[in-house]
Amino acid sequence: MLSFLDALKRAVVGQPFMTRRIPDKPMPKRLALPLLSANPLSSMAYAPDEIILTLAVAGLAALHVAPWVGVAVAVIMLLIILSYRESVKAYPSGGGDYEIAKTNIGPRAGIIVAAALMVDFVLTVAVSTSSAAHYIIAMFPALAGSQGIIAGCGVVILTLINLRGRGKNRTLASIPVILFVAALVVLIVVGSIRAATGTLERLASADFEVLPEAGFDSGLTGLLGVLVVLRAFSTGSAAMTGIEGPISNVHALKAPRARNARAILLMLGFTAAAISIGLMFLARAADIRVTEDPHQNLRLNGGPIPENYVQDPVLGQLAHAVFGLNSPLFYVLGVLTVLVLATAGHMAFRSFPNLASLLAHDGYLPRQLRRRGDRLGYSNGILALGLAALCLVVVFQAHLTSLIQLYVVGVFVSFTLSQLGMLRHWGRKARNTASKAARLRIARARILNLVGLIITATVLFVVLLTRLTLGAWLAIAAIAVLYLVMHSIHEHYEQVERELKIDDLQYSRALPSRVHALILVSSIRKPVLRAVASARASRPSRIEALVVDVDNVSTERTLQAWDKLDLPVPIRVLASPYRETTSPITDYIRSIRARYPRDLVVVYIPEYVVGHWWEQLVHNQTALRIKTRLHFEPGVVVASVPWQLQSSRELIAQYDDAAADSAESSVSAGSITPAPSAPSSKIPPKESHGS
Amino acid sequence: MLSFLDALKRAVVGQPFMTRRIPDKPMPKRLALPLLSANPLSSMAYAPDEIILTLAVAGLAALHVAPWVGVAVAVIMLLIILSYRESVKAYPSGGGDYEIAKTNIGPRAGIIVAAALMVDFVLTVAVSTSSAAHYIIAMFPALAGSQGIIAGCGVVILTLINLRGRGKNRTLASIPVILFVAALVVLIVVGSIRAATGTLERLASADFEVLPEAGFDSGLTGLLGVLVVLRAFSTGSAAMTGIEGPISNVHALKAPRARNARAILLMLGFTAAAISIGLMFLARAADIRVTEDPHQNLRLNGGPIPENYVQDPVLGQLAHAVFGLNSPLFYVLGVLTVLVLATAGHMAFRSFPNLASLLAHDGYLPRQLRRRGDRLGYSNGILALGLAALCLVVVFQAHLTSLIQLYVVGVFVSFTLSQLGMLRHWGRKARNTASKAARLRIARARILNLVGLIITATVLFVVLLTRLTLGAWLAIAAIAVLYLVMHSIHEHYEQVERELKIDDLQYSRALPSRVHALILVSSIRKPVLRAVASARASRPSRIEALVVDVDNVSTERTLQAWDKLDLPVPIRVLASPYRETTSPITDYIRSIRARYPRDLVVVYIPEYVVGHWWEQLVHNQTALRIKTRLHFEPGVVVASVPWQLQSSRELIAQYDDAAADSAESSVSAGSITPAPSAPSSKIPPKESHGS
Repeated sequence: MLSFLDALKRAVVGQPFMTRRIPDKPMPKRLALPLLSANPLSSMAYAPDEIILTLAVAGLAALHVAPWVGVAVAVIMLLIILSYRESVKAYPSGGGDYEIAKTNIGPRAGIIVAAALMVDFVLTVAVSTSSAAHYIIAMFPALAGSQGIIAGCGVVILTLINLRGRGKNRTLASIPVILFVAALVVLIVVGSIRAATGTLERLASADFEVLPEAGFDSGLTGLLGVLVVLRAFSTGSAAMTGIEGPISNVHALKAPRARNARAILLMLGFTAAAISIGLMFLARAADIRVTEDPHQNLRLNGGPIPENYVQDPVLGQLAHAVFGLNSPLFYVLGVLTVLVLATAGHMAFRSFPNLASLLAHDGYLPRQLRRRGDRLGYSNGILALGLAALCLVVVFQAHLTSLIQLYVVGVFVSFTLSQLGMLRHWGRKARNTASKAARLRIARARILNLVGLIITATVLFVVLLTRLTLGAWLAIAAIAVLYLVMHSIHEHYEQVERELKIDDLQYSRALPSRVHALILVSSIRKPVLRAVASARASRPSRIEALVVDVDNVSTERTLQAWDKLDLPVPIRVLASPYRETTSPITDYIRSIRARYPRDLVVVYIPEYVVGHWWEQLVHNQTALRIKTRLHFEPGVVVASVPWQLQSSRELIAQYDDAAADSAESSVSAGSITPAPSAPSSKIPPKESHGS
Repeated sequence: MLSFLDALKRAVVGQPFMTRRIPDKPMPKRLALPLLSANPLSSMAYAPDEIILTLAVAGLAALHVAPWVGVAVAVIMLLIILSYRESVKAYPSGGGDYEIAKTNIGPRAGIIVAAALMVDFVLTVAVSTSSAAHYIIAMFPALAGSQGIIAGCGVVILTLINLRGRGKNRTLASIPVILFVAALVVLIVVGSIRAATGTLERLASADFEVLPEAGFDSGLTGLLGVLVVLRAFSTGSAAMTGIEGPISNVHALKAPRARNARAILLMLGFTAAAISIGLMFLARAADIRVTEDPHQNLRLNGGPIPENYVQDPVLGQLAHAVFGLNSPLFYVLGVLTVLVLATAGHMAFRSFPNLASLLAHDGYLPRQLRRRGDRLGYSNGILALGLAALCLVVVFQAHLTSLIQLYVVGVFVSFTLSQLGMLRHWGRKARNTASKAARLRIARARILNLVGLIITATVLFVVLLTRLTLGAWLAIAAIAVLYLVMHSIHEHYEQVERELKIDDLQYSRALPSRVHALILVSSIRKPVLRAVASARASRPSRIEALVVDVDNVSTERTLQAWDKLDLPVPIRVLASPYRETTSPITDYIRSIRARYPRDLVVVYIPEYVVGHWWEQLVHNQTALRIKTRLHFEPGVVVASVPWQLQSSRELIAQYDDAAADSAESSVSAGSITPAPSAPSSKIPPKESHGS
């Protein structure tokens, strides 16, 4: 069983890597730019759709507003990026928004930011895989209806890839992004020319009418109209997630890091802005309609639209319109989109575990999240992210329009707090700076961050205003829960730290005055003898065997057998009128501790070690119960004296074989002579002669 | 959490009972007869129905055979009882068929019998509760359709009652059985008079025609006809389950036990036989029809029967016919039937755990089944039976006609093997007996058991022949699986026994030559100091602290902190190129063991003890893994040095409070001074001065 699981893990994850392989090669700009752009660029796959379908509730006329919503998103993205370029200068360490908020506002703000980012990373994975599933179905309509399953598989595949760890193939991963940008540029350029010359392919959907929802009979007017436009903007702002990527990854860049990060931010911003504006205007020119439920909301000449109409995503419809219906370029663009969405999800699988390990390091999350797995990734964090994203995808059945309502909230919470933190940072810095030139630079940065703060706070307000009831409350709730969990964990660790801190060296070096060894006896067999031998070898001040009298007959038999052994160890019978094994023992131990409070009680428990789980079922249940209970008694050491049954030896032999088979670990995994890179014994071992 | 579960258990099960309350008062005949008759008598509730509906496939004419099938069942039951009366003489110990088969044929036959009986006990509970549900619905037609839920609740209630344990109210339990018999006698007597005078109420169903199934157009003729009659007989033989009850319960009877058991057997046999024959003839006189699906198989004047016709069980229809339609006596009889069925199920809850504990004692089932619960019942056996019966009831949706196909197989397997065992027993006895009178008595017993063997083997053959494909295969499969499980467990225990038997006293008294104490260190806090103190107190030959170098930075910090403590204990760094904690430690231990094979290695592991499960999640994961793995290393003692954090102390205080609250356990549960009935220390404790 064990060795089977181990073999399975090896097959899935691969051979373990040595720790010294940790430092990743720094990324040159040409790799970092595409990889870090994948997240914002991938939103081109779904943001146009969501903007248009949000506006479509107000009828056909409202669609004319769509390109301008795109422009607004792009402009605001650029402004935020300008502001972030200042943050990078001040925090080139890679701690990102979490570090900025923690340092400048306080630890609470820090964990709010962290919680918000973690929720959004989960959503990035869920949204990217769901959107990818949408594109796969657009290319292979036979798969229609299994969006949830496809997206779920996507999450599992991303999890496994990341458990296998460090891509040596970052170059490979960057290619689809570059090709995707190239394809979009071609699409926009060719599309613009054909639009200008009036030779765009006319799509079936261009003939459809859009039924406005109740209350929108006169289009986008009044307060309701404003609300719809704002909501379209807020969904479109999904394009802004991931622009903080370069800041959280400064440490992974080639030197000069900060300058490279700033350059990447700028290039990323302009590329994304240009492409999104281009796509939105092209979509308008091609007269594309997208609604939440086409058969419900669209009409053809007043009647229903054709039964077999399938609504492709905007990018797909554009490919049809620009390159001709069912051109192979449609499939090229589709595949590239799926790959870019996968890369975006993949990057979240890098960011989430890194952030989690940072939080674990600061004591806000369980320490297990700091543990690097066999392949040097933070495997527990990867598993946590995969599981959370899978839950979301399954619960929402990969329904993009619902998922998107939860999205972006977290990012903007973190943006806003981070900008606030930067303002404080510059304020403090200004007070401590004398040089005029420097103060001028600070003033400039301050203004940029202030603009950033105002914008991000406004967007956050808009997002909450327009979507709180549509699903954003769920994101807020998740952030709140995560915050509380991290807060409690921190409190707990702090509390433990206070309890466990060594404050008085003198006291702590004191030894217990005497040691009482107690040996738990049930039937007189070899394991008991081994326990007795172990206890006697520790030369206790007092030694005693204990038998709990659960059953007269067997107690009598035990006593007789004990007598025959003729050991220099007295046996004591503990009465147990209720046939209970644990409390007579704890009661006896307490009576000893009451008489000799400075003594130590060591309880020796003989145990059988078996090789199969079903053997475990028929042994040791009582021993386990007693051990668990004794852990709660102060001044008691619980010494398990295991007896390895034949079957256990077979198991461990198998296990050792499996370990020896590992190629890399043919160098004994954990040699006693320290590896060159590891520190060796600092203190020369010396024999200790008693106390 | 813990204390909440404990409180829940107390509420459900009640306060624990003292062991000295074990010996139950012996049962006088007037209680034993009704209680032990409950199982065979309860089958009057469903056996007539099953006989009639089995015959009904051959059409109306076939129903005339029904009374004679009843007579056959009654006669064979009496013959088996006569044979059993001989078995009781020879085995008055209460081991029942299991003991007889084991002693006279061999252990394998013994566990076949045991497996067969256990399967049938499960079926007794399932069939009784399902039939009771049927009667409850007959009385409250509004409940129609929820037979499964009612029966399931019945199983749960019986389980809880038996977990609460020993009825002090055996007298109370015997009353419904006596009343039930009285009611049936009245029913038969009054019914016979009214039948003779032609004043029986004419039931609606008497006008119905019975549609024969395909192939039975000419009634019960040919081989097929014989098969149907045999099948009716084999379903009717459900009435014979439980007649082995008096033999398995001899030990609980008042002296003279064997003679009382024999008397009970005889009275039980005649009562059951007389009543079943009476009921079957009365059912014929009242012209009662019962079919599996009345709306399908019955016709009224060639057309369908009324929509709202509900098919009552035979007993219910008889009550209507004899006492008048909807007479209150119908409800009296219904309630009594439900109570008797419940008593029958209840008796299975006594027998199954007793048998299981006997098997556990002989090493065929896990030892936990021998443990008496708080209320002195074998609670694990009770839970196992309840769970198994619940599964059956849920899977079969309490459908009686399906369940009955699985029934009786087990009983007749056990009857047959038991009779075979008795024949061998008498054979051996005859060879060792000289006195002529005694040999005559033996010869008489031998003949009776031979007749018993022939009959039970024949019935078993008939049961298998007629029902194997209808569901009996499932019972056979269950018996086979149980047999294999018990066989493997026995093999395992035997193997363990061989491995663990103390064969060389001299060797076993030898002490390890030296003790190596290793202290696992991760961060330098109070628990580590306590572990060091514990290790030093045991005055080992060699002491060493170990730190596994998973992470350079923290290792360095640990070494510095250790240095500052200035303890007389050297620290050793174990390299771990793959960031693995366990194997560097086991490798190091193996290197020590290789150099000093006769030495003992004691590994001290500091552990945190916390009060909440979620705190557990953030601590000790590594310690747990290492402990588990170290158990597999020979020559290693694992000493947990627990450090109780504040929260754990609160937990244990709560727990102690809860224990103190228990009324009965206000006498300290487990006082050190032995209770009067328990054996006290056999060997006066003497101080042991080292080795």
